[in-house]
Amino acid sequence: MYSFKNDYSEGAHPNILNALLETNFEQEDGYSLDSHSLKAIEYLRREVNDRNADIHFISGGTQMNLLVIGAFLRPHEAVLAASTGHISTHEAGAIEATGHKIIEIETTEGKLNTEHLDVERAKHHFEHMVKPKLVYISNPTELGTVYTKSELQELRDYCDLHNLYLYCDGARLGSLLAATDLTMEDMYNFTDALFVGGTKNGALVGEALLLKNQMVSDEFRYMIKQRGALLAKGRLMGIQFEELFRDGLYYELADHSNKMAQKLANRLKELGFEFLVESITNQIFPILPNELIEKLQEEFDFYVWVPIDDKMSAVRLITSWATPVEQVDAFIKLINQ
Amino acid sequence: MYSFKNDYSEGAHPNILNALLETNFEQEDGYSLDSHSLKAIEYLRREVNDRNADIHFISGGTQMNLLVIGAFLRPHEAVLAASTGHISTHEAGAIEATGHKIIEIETTEGKLNTEHLDVERAKHHFEHMVKPKLVYISNPTELGTVYTKSELQELRDYCDLHNLYLYCDGARLGSLLAATDLTMEDMYNFTDALFVGGTKNGALVGEALLLKNQMVSDEFRYMIKQRGALLAKGRLMGIQFEELFRDGLYYELADHSNKMAQKLANRLKELGFEFLVESITNQIFPILPNELIEKLQEEFDFYVWVPIDDKMSAVRLITSWATPVEQVDAFIKLINQ
Amino acid sequence: MYSFKNDYSEGAHPNILNALLETNFEQEDGYSLDSHSLKAIEYLRREVNDRNADIHFISGGTQMNLLVIGAFLRPHEAVLAASTGHISTHEAGAIEATGHKIIEIETTEGKLNTEHLDVERAKHHFEHMVKPKLVYISNPTELGTVYTKSELQELRDYCDLHNLYLYCDGARLGSLLAATDLTMEDMYNFTDALFVGGTKNGALVGEALLLKNQMVSDEFRYMIKQRGALLAKGRLMGIQFEELFRDGLYYELADHSNKMAQKLANRLKELGFEFLVESITNQIFPILPNELIEKLQEEFDFYVWVPIDDKMSAVRLITSWATPVEQVDAFIKLINQ
Amino acid sequence: MYSFKNDYSEGAHPNILNALLETNFEQEDGYSLDSHSLKAIEYLRREVNDRNADIHFISGGTQMNLLVIGAFLRPHEAVLAASTGHISTHEAGAIEATGHKIIEIETTEGKLNTEHLDVERAKHHFEHMVKPKLVYISNPTELGTVYTKSELQELRDYCDLHNLYLYCDGARLGSLLAATDLTMEDMYNFTDALFVGGTKNGALVGEALLLKNQMVSDEFRYMIKQRGALLAKGRLMGIQFEELFRDGLYYELADHSNKMAQKLANRLKELGFEFLVESITNQIFPILPNELIEKLQEEFDFYVWVPIDDKMSAVRLITSWATPVEQVDAFIKLINQ
Repeated sequence: MYSFKNDYSEGAHPNILNALLETNFEQEDGYSLDSHSLKAIEYLRREVNDRNADIHFISGGTQMNLLVIGAFLRPHEAVLAASTGHISTHEAGAIEATGHKIIEIETTEGKLNTEHLDVERAKHHFEHMVKPKLVYISNPTELGTVYTKSELQELRDYCDLHNLYLYCDGARLGSLLAATDLTMEDMYNFTDALFVGGTKNGALVGEALLLKNQMVSDEFRYMIKQRGALLAKGRLMGIQFEELFRDGLYYELADHSNKMAQKLANRLKELGFEFLVESITNQIFPILPNELIEKLQEEFDFYVWVPIDDKMSAVRLITSWATPVEQVDAFIKLINQ
Repeated sequence: MYSFKNDYSEGAHPNILNALLETNFEQEDGYSLDSHSLKAIEYLRREVNDRNADIHFISGGTQMNLLVIGAFLRPHEAVLAASTGHISTHEAGAIEATGHKIIEIETTEGKLNTEHLDVERAKHHFEHMVKPKLVYISNPTELGTVYTKSELQELRDYCDLHNLYLYCDGARLGSLLAATDLTMEDMYNFTDALFVGGTKNGALVGEALLLKNQMVSDEFRYMIKQRGALLAKGRLMGIQFEELFRDGLYYELADHSNKMAQKLANRLKELGFEFLVESITNQIFPILPNELIEKLQEEFDFYVWVPIDDKMSAVRLITSWATPVEQVDAFIKLINQ
Repeated sequence: MYSFKNDYSEGAHPNILNALLETNFEQEDGYSLDSHSLKAIEYLRREVNDRNADIHFISGGTQMNLLVIGAFLRPHEAVLAASTGHISTHEAGAIEATGHKIIEIETTEGKLNTEHLDVERAKHHFEHMVKPKLVYISNPTELGTVYTKSELQELRDYCDLHNLYLYCDGARLGSLLAATDLTMEDMYNFTDALFVGGTKNGALVGEALLLKNQMVSDEFRYMIKQRGALLAKGRLMGIQFEELFRDGLYYELADHSNKMAQKLANRLKELGFEFLVESITNQIFPILPNELIEKLQEEFDFYVWVPIDDKMSAVRLITSWATPVEQVDAFIKLINQ
Repeated sequence: MYSFKNDYSEGAHPNILNALLETNFEQEDGYSLDSHSLKAIEYLRREVNDRNADIHFISGGTQMNLLVIGAFLRPHEAVLAASTGHISTHEAGAIEATGHKIIEIETTEGKLNTEHLDVERAKHHFEHMVKPKLVYISNPTELGTVYTKSELQELRDYCDLHNLYLYCDGARLGSLLAATDLTMEDMYNFTDALFVGGTKNGALVGEALLLKNQMVSDEFRYMIKQRGALLAKGRLMGIQFEELFRDGLYYELADHSNKMAQKLANRLKELGFEFLVESITNQIFPILPNELIEKLQEEFDFYVWVPIDDKMSAVRLITSWATPVEQVDAFIKLINQ
């Protein structure tokens, strides 16, 4: 049964596996000091047009989030995040385990704006409360929606004005970049720390972190080690990011992934179905009759996201770099029937 | 230049890479719930002859250590460890970052005994001190020495008597098992938690944890997630351990590694050199004239461990599953000259 | 200018200061092992009719809350609390600093019920989320409302059924006991841990904790020490609780405090004013015209709590054991004008 | 039976209790914003000749130490301390519970010097170890010994050179200042943070912290609140420090305490007894025959510190502001017999 449950069901893009094979018997330094990691860093610096970007590779998203937030904040400082943010509910309290509160904000589409921030900053105004200090956004969000360039500029200006950090969880950053006019350089410039997701875009394991903040980047490797996130064979991540960014493979994979989702979305729209939210990335949330959902589930695997009424539910369909167009077609065909 | 610096300089055993390739497009569940992880768990349970062993895969040793220790201890409880223990100095304060003190004990060969434990338990006798609760050993130790079966039995009995946990860091467990009469089942039975190292014995990334303690194992997956250690593509670790334990590859690799180190050691002994400690595993610490060391370093890479006197230093030589016998021979030949 | 801002504006009841003077040159053991602390423990055990109650004295409410919650929970476990709960917003992230998430629940009157708990337990159902484990209630709540006996019984039954802890923050417990038919013994029996507030009911500094849970009480003194909460001159707290509970002073003081608040409340009701919530304890939230508030503030100090509309706001008035009836009368007189 | 076990066996100096009585019904702001705390801050600023000194009151020494160290350090940074330092063994892992490792250093008299620091800095040289960042000293030390002005200058210079913080635990600072030519201003200038002990020099409860470091002092009140150390009735500490520093009571009390100890010491020296260490402060460690110790213990309470040989042991005698000269004389008389 083919699955649209997530974008990490398969292994890695074949180029990556081939590169692992080819380099396997090279002796390399450990702990991300190998030649492949250095090369990958070079490629990523080229993407953001900053030869001084401080770049690290981390094995997963929760690891990344707790590392970055723990590195930026002093003990009494807190994170501002959407209540749908990955750190808010889907990381088993990883951020709180580093000692920091997440101020969870209700939003309509998983996106924070400056009004949200104003409200919370007004509420948290003296030393009996935590001090809001880091704004966590996901782009694309956990609902597949995106922050536009002007929305990001507003957040950046707000953070500058109020001395806040802006951190972007880009677990699906590729999907954002392939779907919009935003570049990685834009995202890097808008943020103090940018997480460039690999696992959900063709890598076997690994995410990249791009840091501008000097105070943090100076000693970030200590913290990676302390959290148990410094892999002995760091080459594993270096090789993957080298492959992904040497010739633009990262963008090609994301583009394919988006196209598969949008093909599904477009067909569903033509058939008159509505969506929980508008998404231009690789996850979509169509609202379907429960009967149809049951039929579809006989041949495809996906999550039923939330009931809408007695007869309809929103489902979540996620495509990936590895989704064959044949499966998308088969899914559409089944709906048509 | 060939390196004897460590046992994680190369990639993975080719069987592992081939398995990754072959399974690459299977769609699998994430977070170590894939079919390969389940198979690997089955193999490891067979090794320890316990169908109920609770088994988890973790990406690295520091991650493993902080996870296990953080899971076992209540806030005021502390770890007893040799001052040469990996957690004592080489993990950037990872254990303390979980809130727990390590009581560091000076030893001669990196090995704890019940007298050490007696002394520290007597010192830490009431609520103004931490409460010693978990005994951390490495087997083999960080100096390549090993705990024998009777030494382990003594520690186990002591821990039972005094209500302590016994945890074994087996980052190089393969090397122990290949060098002694101890089996993985023995090690599992002596301990409350056993770390079976993969990264240093042919895997690309990954260690296995075998838990008997019910209180901890019931909810250990929560803690893995909270520490950022639950890999989305857990299949990566499952596939590796499946390969390592299907037909005994784990033991073959460790045996090769030990043999290479012992070949070096034996030749050096024949030539009259002494050693910092006696090791029967894959790391040895011969004491060589500084002049000879300089010559050797022109053609080989290795660590000078500690100066002995003005003319002599101990060096550390580590071999691995991937060490070619030709390089060992070349090293010996160079010494002979 | 007289202040109705809080119930900790004055020092201590004179009996307490006299007792400090009288016992001043006795040499006593430190760290709450003095004879006065032992006597106070005896008195408190009498109140709850349990000779084995495990009792500790702590210097303040935030300290108490972080200690109790940190002692009960394992790393991945979380607290369920009203979003108006003191720990949720007014303790500067103290609970999160111990590593635990607070799941904040919107309520109407600051009170949790089993439906709230059902909803959150359903949301937090597997290891990618925290595990809800301890229910935190304040009685009276931060809004002056109270949980009744039957509401408490329902929560207790729910907690038993679902293996949750129930902890009651009784910073103003005296006020509850004086206002309702609930006894301290009831509160002790309903909960796993009961905080009996002293600072807000006549003490200079100090709160008592009554613990039934054996797992925690066995080693709670370690945790008190570890959090920096074990006072060298623990006698200070022992003497105070000895005075408060020898002959019922605690209840007399709370009764006075409640009466002063209710006198204010009754008069305001007679005058037709409404209240933000109904309170029978020592804090009330009348809704007054902004003009009147301004007038009152010329002669009295109190907090404007929340605007209701353009013309009206809720204010908070708190009385204490030390509130003179003359000041209450003067306040009423000023309103009448 | 009179006790020489410690300097916190009695209550507070009578002036303090009288001040509590006199001010009891004043309504004051909570959380150390009361007029007495402000006055006490003014007095302490006068002592150190710095009108901008940032000053806070904390209820106890362990609380102080964990607060200061937690506020100064980033997650991967560690403390350098003597193994006899109070934080090293007598605080139940309070520092580690904030996430930071203490690098414990063996010393002869409880005192650190720059050679100790050189050794540890050399050992901890890269990101697989913690980064040594804060030097913790106690003056007087836990053995009653003192750092001299030149020793402090050396440490200060070293810390400046290597970008380390210097923090002094002055739980018994009064005793130091009364025994040497060091002033509080000197101690303030040598350190980044100075703990001025009250509990062991006449206060009922409370220690003062003097901070020069801007980064920390700006937001230190948040951290006090977060650790549960912000007392609602902060006036309690303000009033005490107001009394202690208005007219020099602090110095008088410490001087008396020292004199009592030195009277004991001098008499014991005249009788030919030796000492474990030389101390000029209020704790002394004479080496006495075990037989004599037994006799003395029939009439006096004190700690036997450490056995010296079969026949002799070092004992610890501590005097305080409240020690009557008659008890000292009685003790001497008993020895003479």
